[in-house]
Order: sequence, then C-alpha cells, then structure tokens
Amino acid sequence: MVEQLHVNTRGQGLYEFTDQVEALVRQAKVESGLCTVFVQHTSASLCIQENADPSARYDLEEWITRFAPENDPAFTHTAEGPDDMPAHIKATVTDCSLSIPIFESKLGLGTWQGIYLWEHRHRSHRRSILVHIGS
Amino acid sequence: MVEQLHVNTRGQGLYEFTDQVEALVRQAKVESGLCTVFVQHTSASLCIQENADPSARYDLEEWITRFAPENDPAFTHTAEGPDDMPAHIKATVTDCSLSIPIFESKLGLGTWQGIYLWEHRHRSHRRSILVHIGS
Amino acid sequence: MVEQLHVNTRGQGLYEFTDQVEALVRQAKVESGLCTVFVQHTSASLCIQENADPSARYDLEEWITRFAPENDPAFTHTAEGPDDMPAHIKATVTDCSLSIPIFESKLGLGTWQGIYLWEHRHRSHRRSILVHIGS
Repeated sequence: MVEQLHVNTRGQGLYEFTDQVEALVRQAKVESGLCTVFVQHTSASLCIQENADPSARYDLEEWITRFAPENDPAFTHTAEGPDDMPAHIKATVTDCSLSIPIFESKLGLGTWQGIYLWEHRHRSHRRSILVHIGS
Repeated sequence: MVEQLHVNTRGQGLYEFTDQVEALVRQAKVESGLCTVFVQHTSASLCIQENADPSARYDLEEWITRFAPENDPAFTHTAEGPDDMPAHIKATVTDCSLSIPIFESKLGLGTWQGIYLWEHRHRSHRRSILVHIGS
Repeated sequence: MVEQLHVNTRGQGLYEFTDQVEALVRQAKVESGLCTVFVQHTSASLCIQENADPSARYDLEEWITRFAPENDPAFTHTAEGPDDMPAHIKATVTDCSLSIPIFESKLGLGTWQGIYLWEHRHRSHRRSILVHIGS
C-alpha cells in the first residue's frame, strides 16, 4: 500500500505529522510490518525527534540555521534565492526516507519520538510525502 | 517478522551489534529480502561504518564531539543536562533507520561494514532497537 | 528481488544512477511497492538531490570538502591516505540506504529528485550497490 499525504508549511521549522502516518497504519491493519515515509523534495526533509519539550525543536532550528548559513560567498547556485542552497545542504544531512517497523499493530516509535517534516525554505509550501506500508 | 533487541552502553561511542542482526537474519531463513534496523531513541542513533581499524571509530567520536559541543550558549533545551541537546543534533545528522538487503541468505553488508549503535549520552543506557525482516 | 549494480567513479563528486534503478523497477513489474538502495562501502555514500541545475551539485561538493577537510591534526586513522577519514565523516552525515516507494508502477521520486552515488575518495573506484524491490 502506498499513499500520498501533504504537509502545509509556513516557513522554516519542524512540522509534526505523526498522527497522519499512524492513521494510515491503523487503516492498513498490519500486525507486523514496515512503514516507510519518503519526502518528494530536495529543499525539505524528514526527521524523527523529541516530541515532548518544544525547546529541543527550537534549538535544532537555531543550530541548523547556523550550520548552513545563507549568503555563503562560495555558493554559485543562487538563482532560486539565498535560502535555496542552504536548504539543499540541510536536506542532505538530515533524512529523505525513514523506515519504522510496525510492531503489535502499532508504529514502533519510542516514547519520545515524533515524525517531522523539516521545512528549509522561507516561503509557505505544500509538501508531498509518500507512505509505503508492507508486511 | 519484527524483533526487539537491546544494546547496553557505557558512555559515548560506537557499539557494534552486527552479530545480533545477523543472528535474526539466519533465524528468518529468507533467501532474498530486506532487513531494517530502527532505534527507538532521540539521543542515540545508528551508523554503518568501518569495522576493521578501531582508529576510524575513535576519530569519528572525536569529530562528532567537536561538531556538536556541549554548553553552546544558544541552547535553551538544557534541563536534561549539557549532553542532551548535542545528543539530539548528533542523532539528527546520523541515522535512526537503516535498510540492508538480504542477498543469497546473508545480510548484504560490504566487506568492511559493521552496524553500530551510536550512544550520544554520558550515562549508561539500555537502548532498544527494532529489527524488521521482510521478503 | 535483490540485484547488485555498479557505479564507476573518477574522483570525488556526485554520480547520478537514477536510470539504472528505474530500469530495475520496470523489470520488476511492481505496481505498488518499495525500492531500497544500499551502498556497500564506508567511503562513498548515497544522496537524493536536485537533478536540474548542476550548480547545486557543484556547491554541495564544495561545501562537503570544507565541512570535513583533509589533514585535520586530530585524525589518527591516516594509514589509508589523507582523504580516508574525511570520507568516513562525509559518509556518516549523508546516507548509506535510501527507500523510495513505487507508486503507479513508477519510482516515486519528486520532479527534481535524482539518485546519486557520492564518491568521497580521490582515486577511481568501482562502487557496488544493492537494490531491493518488494511489494
């Protein structure tokens, strides 16, 4: 089973969509299997991170902004704006696919794990994600 | 088939558990398939790296310590100790899931590849990992 | 189905092999499924990045060279040459496995996504990749 879902973003940051993935897992009625999430973009990515304290996400965003700053004089790929090349670098060091086992009919996430779409562009986007569920 | 396994850690570093995954692959008796390893934590991660010369792992640990140092004045998520936010950053740039094809009834690792749990906290932990094997 | 394919490299950089993976997906005649690509090396890695403007790949290579420079005085793993330890670090922050859903009989890549082998060594290599296709 493959389904496409969407996450609407309003600027850089982490957007949780664990509930959308869990709903598909419940629909699939698989007791034991594998759920794979894939983002169809190169300037947004995926991340499994702490879903408890929002300060962890705040610090991750601050850190990644400093890690791949805009207006690096070495950049030549600048036609799509100053946030485009940093977005590709940020997507490269994070994830474009994640595979999570389904265990006892549930997504096998740890207690503090949530699934996030990481938006790396300033503008609002409608991001497309494919979800595969297999046995 | 989904199984849970554990890796006990005694501080930061890379802990190999290839043999535990290979034992599950042998049990599963799959000639051709896919083995997915998933870590259920956000302050430990997974890594496939060189299993020959231990100096490569030593240098990786030295490098990642400098890459995400403790006590960054920008951090706000500090309630769980100075090693917590660096642990989240280290987990973000490494892997939380890995998928390895099973080829001719064996895990398709290259000659020098081992599977490691990367512990990013100072304290000892019992880390949980889910392993899915499918055809 | 698991197949092995090869990518010949001539020094550091991104080598696209999307067409080789797509050919295997067509052969497999799977309408809905999952395609997993795995690199059997620790000094080369995988990356899904923009396949339109080559300047994005040029900048990624420039960036990663500065990110993990050669001759870091902290390195102890130097027996295999100055490009070896940086290669392990670069492989660690990028991907060794990628899973892409197969949707409507096609690899579910976004419009601008291509699959690349990222060579991190100076010398020419013949890199081995395993591709698993499941339903």
